Amino acid sequence: MQIAIVLFDRFTALDAVGPYETLGRLPDSEVVFVAEQTGPVRADSGSLALIADRTLAEVPNPDVLVVPGGPGQTPQMENRALLDWIRAADATSTWTTSVCTGSLLLAAAGLLEGRRATSHWLALDELRKFGTEPTGERVVTDGKYVTAAGVSSGIDMGLALIGRIAGDFVAQAVQLGIEYDPQPPYDAGSPQKAPAHLVEEFRSKSRFILT
Amino acid sequence: MQIAIVLFDRFTALDAVGPYETLGRLPDSEVVFVAEQTGPVRADSGSLALIADRTLAEVPNPDVLVVPGGPGQTPQMENRALLDWIRAADATSTWTTSVCTGSLLLAAAGLLEGRRATSHWLALDELRKFGTEPTGERVVTDGKYVTAAGVSSGIDMGLALIGRIAGDFVAQAVQLGIEYDPQPPYDAGSPQKAPAHLVEEFRSKSRFILT
Repeated sequence: MQIAIVLFDRFTALDAVGPYETLGRLPDSEVVFVAEQTGPVRADSGSLALIADRTLAEVPNPDVLVVPGGPGQTPQMENRALLDWIRAADATSTWTTSVCTGSLLLAAAGLLEGRRATSHWLALDELRKFGTEPTGERVVTDGKYVTAAGVSSGIDMGLALIGRIAGDFVAQAVQLGIEYDPQPPYDAGSPQKAPAHLVEEFRSKSRFILT
Repeated sequence: MQIAIVLFDRFTALDAVGPYETLGRLPDSEVVFVAEQTGPVRADSGSLALIADRTLAEVPNPDVLVVPGGPGQTPQMENRALLDWIRAADATSTWTTSVCTGSLLLAAAGLLEGRRATSHWLALDELRKFGTEPTGERVVTDGKYVTAAGVSSGIDMGLALIGRIAGDFVAQAVQLGIEYDPQPPYDAGSPQKAPAHLVEEFRSKSRFILT
C-alpha cells in the first residue's frame, strides 16, 4: 500500500507528520513524501524543512493520498498543477484524506462537493463555497474521503484509518507504539472549550496568530 | 529564546515535530534543527528526512534543548561528540528536555543522575542504569529537566513548557491554534490501558515492532 503525503511551501509540519507517524506503521505500507519538485520544502515557521523524495508526476497512483494544510494552502488554491494531480490521484485512490486546511485543497479540486467534511476550526465556513457541508467533528469520513480538523488531528485520523484498513488490533498496536495517551495540560483545544476571549482574539485577527 | 532540536540518524519524527509545533509558536522564539552535519537526516522509517540547518558547533548555547528518541538513539549512546555537546549546551540552558528514548541520551550525558525522569514505556527500566528514577508519568519535570514519555508525548510536554515560560494564556492559544483536542479512536495508548496480550507482544519482541 502506497501512502503519498503532499508537501508545499509553508505547510504545517504536524499536519503531515501526524499521519506519517501513524499510517507509516501499517504493515506492508510505503510512505512517500511528494511535491512539485523534489528536495527540501519549508514548513510555515521557516525553521523546519522536510524532504520531498518524489515529484508529483513520479507518484501518480497512491493508494492513500494525504493533503496537509497550513498558511501555504491559500496560494495552492490557484495551483493548477497540484489540483490536477490531486484529482488524478483521487481517481484511483482507495482513500483520499486531508488534515487542517488541506480539505480546502480537496474541495478546490472538486472532490468534496455534496459531501460532509471538516477543517481547521477557523476555516470551516470556507468549505461551504465548494458545496461542502462543514462539521465540527474531529475526523469526518464520507465515502472514501477522510478529513481531519486542525493540525494535531491527523494523529487521530491516522489511527482511525489504520483501524479501517488493517483492523483494531493493528491500530491499537500503533497507538501503543507511539504512546498516544494524550494528557494535555490545558483544555483549550477547540473553540467550544477554550476561553471565549481567546477564541475572539483568533477570529478577529488572522487564522494563525501564533505562527 | 533559542530552541535547539537535535536530529540524528533514525530518530522518530514525531518526537521532534511535537515539541517543534508547540514550542515553535512561543512569541520571540527561534527554533533551530541541529545535527553533527547540516543537511537531511533520515527518520527511523527511512521514508522521511528533516533538514538540520545548523551543526551542533554552530549552536553552543540554546536556551531550550530538545533531544528526541527513536531506534537511532542506541548507537548515539556511544557518540562522544553528541554527548559532549549535550553536556555543554546543558551547562547554559534554561530548560533541557527530551522525548521518548531521548531521555537515555540525557542520562548517558550524565545529566539525570539522582533525578526523576520518564521515557518510552518500553525503555523506562533502562534509566535505572544511570541512577535515574523512572516514572510512568507522561511529562516529568525535575528542576530544569523535562522529560516526556513515548513519541506523541512531546506535544503535551511542549504545551506544559510554554505554560511555564510564557504563562497559561499563551499555552492555551497554542493549543487552540493546533486544535489539540485529542480524540483517539482507541484507548490503547499506554501499557496500563492497552490489551494485555498486545503489551506482551511488544515486550517479547523488540522496542518498536511496527517500525
